[in-house]
Amino acid sequence: MDIGMVGLGRMGANMAERLRRGGHRVIGFDAKTATEKPGFQRANEQDIERAASLAALVERLPAPRAVWLMVPAGPAVDATIEELRLLLAHGDTLIDGGNSNYRDSQRRAQSLAEQHIDFVDCGTSGGIWGLSEGYSLMLGGGAAAVERLRPLLETLAPAADRGWGRVGPAGAGHFAKMIHNGIEYGLMQAYAEGFSLLRHKQEFALDLHQVAEIWRHGSVVRSWLLDLASGALGDNPALDGIAPYVADSGEGRWTVAEAIELDVAAPVITLALLARLRSRDEASFSDKLLAALRQQFGGHDIRKG
Amino acid sequence: MDIGMVGLGRMGANMAERLRRGGHRVIGFDAKTATEKPGFQRANEQDIERAASLAALVERLPAPRAVWLMVPAGPAVDATIEELRLLLAHGDTLIDGGNSNYRDSQRRAQSLAEQHIDFVDCGTSGGIWGLSEGYSLMLGGGAAAVERLRPLLETLAPAADRGWGRVGPAGAGHFAKMIHNGIEYGLMQAYAEGFSLLRHKQEFALDLHQVAEIWRHGSVVRSWLLDLASGALGDNPALDGIAPYVADSGEGRWTVAEAIELDVAAPVITLALLARLRSRDEASFSDKLLAALRQQFGGHDIRKG
Repeated sequence: MDIGMVGLGRMGANMAERLRRGGHRVIGFDAKTATEKPGFQRANEQDIERAASLAALVERLPAPRAVWLMVPAGPAVDATIEELRLLLAHGDTLIDGGNSNYRDSQRRAQSLAEQHIDFVDCGTSGGIWGLSEGYSLMLGGGAAAVERLRPLLETLAPAADRGWGRVGPAGAGHFAKMIHNGIEYGLMQAYAEGFSLLRHKQEFALDLHQVAEIWRHGSVVRSWLLDLASGALGDNPALDGIAPYVADSGEGRWTVAEAIELDVAAPVITLALLARLRSRDEASFSDKLLAALRQQFGGHDIRKG
Repeated sequence: MDIGMVGLGRMGANMAERLRRGGHRVIGFDAKTATEKPGFQRANEQDIERAASLAALVERLPAPRAVWLMVPAGPAVDATIEELRLLLAHGDTLIDGGNSNYRDSQRRAQSLAEQHIDFVDCGTSGGIWGLSEGYSLMLGGGAAAVERLRPLLETLAPAADRGWGRVGPAGAGHFAKMIHNGIEYGLMQAYAEGFSLLRHKQEFALDLHQVAEIWRHGSVVRSWLLDLASGALGDNPALDGIAPYVADSGEGRWTVAEAIELDVAAPVITLALLARLRSRDEASFSDKLLAALRQQFGGHDIRKG
């Protein structure tokens, strides 16, 4: 089917390319120029029509239109929606496939419904591997709106009948994706701690890549993240050149806030987020204070810094 | 090749059966009678020779012998080794495939080396699925001793060239398995918390099995544990009849103790262990004290219990 893809960064460009390979007609638009987007240039750019503006993109799509947003969560989504709102018509569908906060998605769905524009939020997992392996897609929105997108979803997912589904009303897709990412934080931290322990057990001189490879086959901890860890350790066993600084992009902290709001204890997901915050706190004031207190009451040495 | 399998519980019986199917001659022995062992009866019992005693088992094996222990970690392993020590000879190999503490394995290897009996510790992962899917095997011990076991290892593993390997000297296999289990605690806890959050978000009435199935294909959190979680939620979406009581069998607490000894922070693995301890503390004294303190300083109500 015809689809407008707005936002041709790493994720959007790969999704556009997977859709094109699946036989869909994709019209792309990116607020920045194409030349600034390496992700898009890796794809077969010549095969994806590119509109010069949102208006031109909407004009080239047959009604009822489907426009898929892959723009950074936050104000950029609202700005794009506000512009598209003036261009789209009754019966069109707007999909937000980014990592928006699910409450924003609920608000946007309600606001667009006033104009009879269907809003579908799509939690999208798979990262840069999605192009070849397919994406896991959690959809929120009206059942009819999601059903109209079926040809696209069957192409984007790993297989037509797997890895995608409507999980609930508007917001539910991004909610499920938020929790997915919270779990991801916990999983990543558990592997990270385990491999750090293996590395520090110098007496055994373990080959971390070898251990990861053994675990990948038949063990209880086998997973896609372990596959990636094994690849990273194979390429660079000591992880040379990688600073111990871990960013986050929001879903983890939203998950923790949601856990508190729901009165649900989520200690490991919470602690995994805190570990990332700690990784970025190079001049930790709390650790300085701990050292100062030990000096105060016990006369213990401090390390200058 | 010929192998003696001592301990025919869930793990031992399945491993014996996988070895038999792979064309090996397995002689089994279990300190309890066979009729008390459902795991073994599920296997094709008639095809595995069964010795009436450890002495009879050793007698039926051609030299150099290989005897594989799958008995519960702790005193049972020492008792079995002490008995086998008197029966085995120079050049024989004794494999401990259970979840022994790696320091015990180091001690046993040293002690058996005095009699020129090779000791190999084998961290074994795969649970009850190992029979059909193969086991992940982390081996510690002398290179020559492990190499002699190659025909067995190639059969037990998911494939001849995958999922097994000698990771270091005696003790290293059980060390790697210990860390594997520590990671497993963290992974399980992260999934558990995530699904609990999904369940408590009543506004979306999410189908947890559906979400798990979507995640199984293409998502970043896909894993074998997620496959199992999806199966459990499919069979029993509300997990009716399962008490929120989580046991542990030692490797988690050993991992935490090791982390402290190595001066390595492993917060999420540690907290995952503590969450299990908390699950078993139905009459939590600390929570009683917290409630009492709130009453003391703020006059807050306590709940009778």
